[in-house]
Amino acid sequence: MNYPQFLELLGWLATLTFATSGALLAVQKRFDLVGIFVLAGVTAVGGGSIRDLLVGSLPPQVFRNESVIWAVLLISLLVWRFYGRVSRLDRPIYYLDTVGLGLFAALGAERGLTFGLGFWGCIFAGTVSGVGGGILRDVLAGEVPGVFYRNRDLYASAASAGALVVFIIYKFFPSLAALALLLGATTTIALRLSSRWLGLRLPTPKP
Amino acid sequence: MNYPQFLELLGWLATLTFATSGALLAVQKRFDLVGIFVLAGVTAVGGGSIRDLLVGSLPPQVFRNESVIWAVLLISLLVWRFYGRVSRLDRPIYYLDTVGLGLFAALGAERGLTFGLGFWGCIFAGTVSGVGGGILRDVLAGEVPGVFYRNRDLYASAASAGALVVFIIYKFFPSLAALALLLGATTTIALRLSSRWLGLRLPTPKP
Amino acid sequence: MNYPQFLELLGWLATLTFATSGALLAVQKRFDLVGIFVLAGVTAVGGGSIRDLLVGSLPPQVFRNESVIWAVLLISLLVWRFYGRVSRLDRPIYYLDTVGLGLFAALGAERGLTFGLGFWGCIFAGTVSGVGGGILRDVLAGEVPGVFYRNRDLYASAASAGALVVFIIYKFFPSLAALALLLGATTTIALRLSSRWLGLRLPTPKP
Repeated sequence: MNYPQFLELLGWLATLTFATSGALLAVQKRFDLVGIFVLAGVTAVGGGSIRDLLVGSLPPQVFRNESVIWAVLLISLLVWRFYGRVSRLDRPIYYLDTVGLGLFAALGAERGLTFGLGFWGCIFAGTVSGVGGGILRDVLAGEVPGVFYRNRDLYASAASAGALVVFIIYKFFPSLAALALLLGATTTIALRLSSRWLGLRLPTPKP
Repeated sequence: MNYPQFLELLGWLATLTFATSGALLAVQKRFDLVGIFVLAGVTAVGGGSIRDLLVGSLPPQVFRNESVIWAVLLISLLVWRFYGRVSRLDRPIYYLDTVGLGLFAALGAERGLTFGLGFWGCIFAGTVSGVGGGILRDVLAGEVPGVFYRNRDLYASAASAGALVVFIIYKFFPSLAALALLLGATTTIALRLSSRWLGLRLPTPKP
Repeated sequence: MNYPQFLELLGWLATLTFATSGALLAVQKRFDLVGIFVLAGVTAVGGGSIRDLLVGSLPPQVFRNESVIWAVLLISLLVWRFYGRVSRLDRPIYYLDTVGLGLFAALGAERGLTFGLGFWGCIFAGTVSGVGGGILRDVLAGEVPGVFYRNRDLYASAASAGALVVFIIYKFFPSLAALALLLGATTTIALRLSSRWLGLRLPTPKP
């Protein structure tokens, strides 16, 4: 397995983990089967689709390569059928979700660069790729989007930091471009894990 | 009245029914007059506009033929003025809404095909045309989008099934293309009505 | 300072005021630092970005001139650091917000005209430019979008009226085009202020 294949494999893992988290929430909210599929799909591909909308690349990527949707359908059926067992997989899901966040953020920032966005455009494209699906999931399920909410592990900010690393490498160290995605994703993953393991938090002001 | 005119008439009826359902919710939520108009409009044309955004057909159709917005304005004024009487029209509104769902889903799937979307793209374009307006309506009114929620009549899934029928006919039975819209819409309507009359439900897993 | 510079200055003031209102809500909701920045940014540029999405001008303006985002970052840091003092500035923030609403609505309507939208398209472009950011802010913070809600000062409707004035002047009094923005903005501001000072309200029907 070479390097691009390895990245693609990780990208798939990320998508499927995000789909699983959407499907699990849908079951908790007692959505029916189609609702589970929709929430799983929105969580998995929503972030990338918002990014594609913003850079003007329409229709979004997901509708040009639909194999990912078939995979989301499979995940939805599995979660529906084996809810009890899947929902006990907290820990592996957490780690896959972290890897997914890192990869989506790095790939989103790269896509922003491809479409000629500037500094904040790339940060935004990376961050929204990473966290947009989760935000749509929470809004559709009637919850405050957890991504901003108080006192959690670093999440959106970890994605932003990864996108920032990708941007900096492409702009200032083009000789390292081959490594940009990997370094960006690693940054996001490292930040999120250190926030879990070391209790690292962003400051929250008192109102 | 020939067949295209008949379809267009139904399409108008569908739009106006959706507008009515938005306006009624706005009155219940004590929105003011502009809020009623906005919620009616979003419900009536929101689904089609999300679809147009996704296929990259901008500005959305509604801004190229604005007569529909004048009609929504009229509906809003009527609902505002005659709230009591309109809100008692539950049953006819339910049937018109069902017809509207079927027509929007079929027309949305056809539009997806026109713009070169694949299988899931067409299903999505059809479904979001049918249910997108209602989702926006619920989010803007601060409710969990009822479309996914537990134990209701088939709704999003009925729309998806209708879009599926349109897709299959266009792809595999092109000689029947003239009937595709009608058969798709009929599928959606039949599924929704049988869910109401026969208690047909999608399975909802227990969390 | 000439007239275009004066308008641009007001536009900046408007953006910064909107950013401040987003940042203040984020602090009240106990968002962390990144959440504050995101909510401030969405409030400041969300309306204009929805408008750009709808007219098909992608990527949105904000990603082509990023200085506004740096300013939003600065505002977020200031609100975070000086929350107590900023939150007591109710009254100046209210007036700046009113000026901002008027300017955004007028500028949005003009942009709609530039992209060839018709009557309702321009009204919508103007209104969504003015109030879209606040709607996104409220949805992301888990609140019913205050913009529609009962018994408040005129807000969305004031923005629509301003956009209407811009549209009418451009279409029917082209010789006054240079004044269109100013007259539109003034209409919005005058309506909102008279609703505050005189208790002017839109009718709200009883459900």
